[in-house]
Amino acid sequence: MSLINIPLPSTAVIREVGLRDGLQSIQTILPSEHKRAWVQAAHAAGVREIEIGSFVPKRLLPQLADTAELVAYARTLPELFVSALVPNLRGAENAIASGVDLMIVPLSASHAHSLANLRKTPDEVVAEVARIRAARDAAGAKTLIEGGVGTAFGCTLQGEVEPDEVLRLMQALLDAGADRVSLADTVGYAGPAAVSRLFERAVAIAGEQFWCGHFHDTRGLGLANVYAAMQAGVTRFDACLGGIGGCPHAPGASGNVTTEDLAFMLESMGVGTGLDIGQLLSLRERLSDWLRGETLHGTLWRAGLPKTFHPHSSQAAQSAILA
Amino acid sequence: MSLINIPLPSTAVIREVGLRDGLQSIQTILPSEHKRAWVQAAHAAGVREIEIGSFVPKRLLPQLADTAELVAYARTLPELFVSALVPNLRGAENAIASGVDLMIVPLSASHAHSLANLRKTPDEVVAEVARIRAARDAAGAKTLIEGGVGTAFGCTLQGEVEPDEVLRLMQALLDAGADRVSLADTVGYAGPAAVSRLFERAVAIAGEQFWCGHFHDTRGLGLANVYAAMQAGVTRFDACLGGIGGCPHAPGASGNVTTEDLAFMLESMGVGTGLDIGQLLSLRERLSDWLRGETLHGTLWRAGLPKTFHPHSSQAAQSAILA
Repeated sequence: MSLINIPLPSTAVIREVGLRDGLQSIQTILPSEHKRAWVQAAHAAGVREIEIGSFVPKRLLPQLADTAELVAYARTLPELFVSALVPNLRGAENAIASGVDLMIVPLSASHAHSLANLRKTPDEVVAEVARIRAARDAAGAKTLIEGGVGTAFGCTLQGEVEPDEVLRLMQALLDAGADRVSLADTVGYAGPAAVSRLFERAVAIAGEQFWCGHFHDTRGLGLANVYAAMQAGVTRFDACLGGIGGCPHAPGASGNVTTEDLAFMLESMGVGTGLDIGQLLSLRERLSDWLRGETLHGTLWRAGLPKTFHPHSSQAAQSAILA
Repeated sequence: MSLINIPLPSTAVIREVGLRDGLQSIQTILPSEHKRAWVQAAHAAGVREIEIGSFVPKRLLPQLADTAELVAYARTLPELFVSALVPNLRGAENAIASGVDLMIVPLSASHAHSLANLRKTPDEVVAEVARIRAARDAAGAKTLIEGGVGTAFGCTLQGEVEPDEVLRLMQALLDAGADRVSLADTVGYAGPAAVSRLFERAVAIAGEQFWCGHFHDTRGLGLANVYAAMQAGVTRFDACLGGIGGCPHAPGASGNVTTEDLAFMLESMGVGTGLDIGQLLSLRERLSDWLRGETLHGTLWRAGLPKTFHPHSSQAAQSAILA
């Protein structure tokens, strides 16, 4: 067996989701001022896609109550593609009104998880996506719709989730009018072999509409899973600065894949990310100050970049800073 | 590109190296009593290969001063294959006398690192391996000789290390009489693409004599690197319980790949390890008590095993416990 010629992509996109998936899972409510500083510094470090918050009722997620305001700020930064999560039609209407570039509708492939968290069956979420698509089109808005299939590798309530069911729901989201689809290992159950198998099938089904891989590092396999997904043809990954987040039901559990570690892995393989890792590490230090008392994750920050490290994106990041 | 049919091995060996590579890098001197308890519990959890210490002068590594005594203890446990590190001919003579199954001779492919740490050039180490081989054969001993090529992906002193030089030295070790060869990313500089490239070439050269992949998780890529090496055909990996170790020159840096996280990754892919992960997690807790004040690493311990986890090795581990 020779895999020496596995073609890795020349570039990949890291979508920073710390402001949404990270902050919604921790206790501290980060003031808007610090969120804006985070967005600004991330942009200066080369981040060009960001999930900035969630259009949910403020009483449910006070941590993300300033989402609309943050979208408005993020839109002032050049070339920044801004996403937000929307749980339903009402959230989507608010998202469209905010001028966000893309709205992510989460669907949980685990029926038990879906009922517990969204109070809808997965197929009811698909129907909601059809309504969101109709509303988007009626408004003449350009806001893209991403259907994100979560608990794609199992869930803490239901246990096993069948890959066939995951892919059926992904196809149903496309049929309902989602412009993009993604798969998420919401609870950190996936290993790289399962990722290879499922993502290959997903990419074969959705083609260019397959948008993003979303991995949690709950059990340490986040980066190995990204590598496996990349071999399956995926070139966009969600990540959180400092690996913040986790799960309210698993104290101390890690959150998403760590942005700076992922950027290092990709750049070390010659996969350009456009990110300046030194700047990301500096921003991580500021985040660590802002979130004193919260646990940050990741590994690169302890040892720093290797002496041999030649970033493939330094030029891009430099231009970004000067822009 | 379809990689869906990448044949993963049905089994892989995790060699526990925490008692050597882990303990030599931290301040605490673990009493022999605790080391024996560690070896015993690891064996009960299914560990069948262990690197137990180092035959170096006691004044250099007081943490490992009881290596010969530990070898004697480990040899009483059924089916346990016992390794120790030897830096030179004198160490090898002591190792042979101890009855260890395999001795690992470290060679640093970085000339600067080799001179600083071993006070020999890499080729002088190759010559020492030839002397060790002659001594082993003269003694009529069965002790296997493993030549371990370290800093195979760069080093903190020299920076870049050429892959051609790594492979030249690996071949030279075989020519000098090493029974086995291994590659080590001593300082955590490797990423999965570089691992794929170098390990494919190494396996092609050494065939069945290629023995082990040794990765440090210094920058978070340890498990992704293992996955890449496994795709290149490697089926034996060094790991430390609790990810202990690190580098005296990089405070807080992680040590080797974490045994329990690696076992989880392999088992989750259907690659049998013979290890009972629950028992490894319990042992990790004891180690955490023994090494109070030292930083342990790894991720699985926080969240525990997934609800969907079906160990492929439970039967083997059960038999081991009952044996």
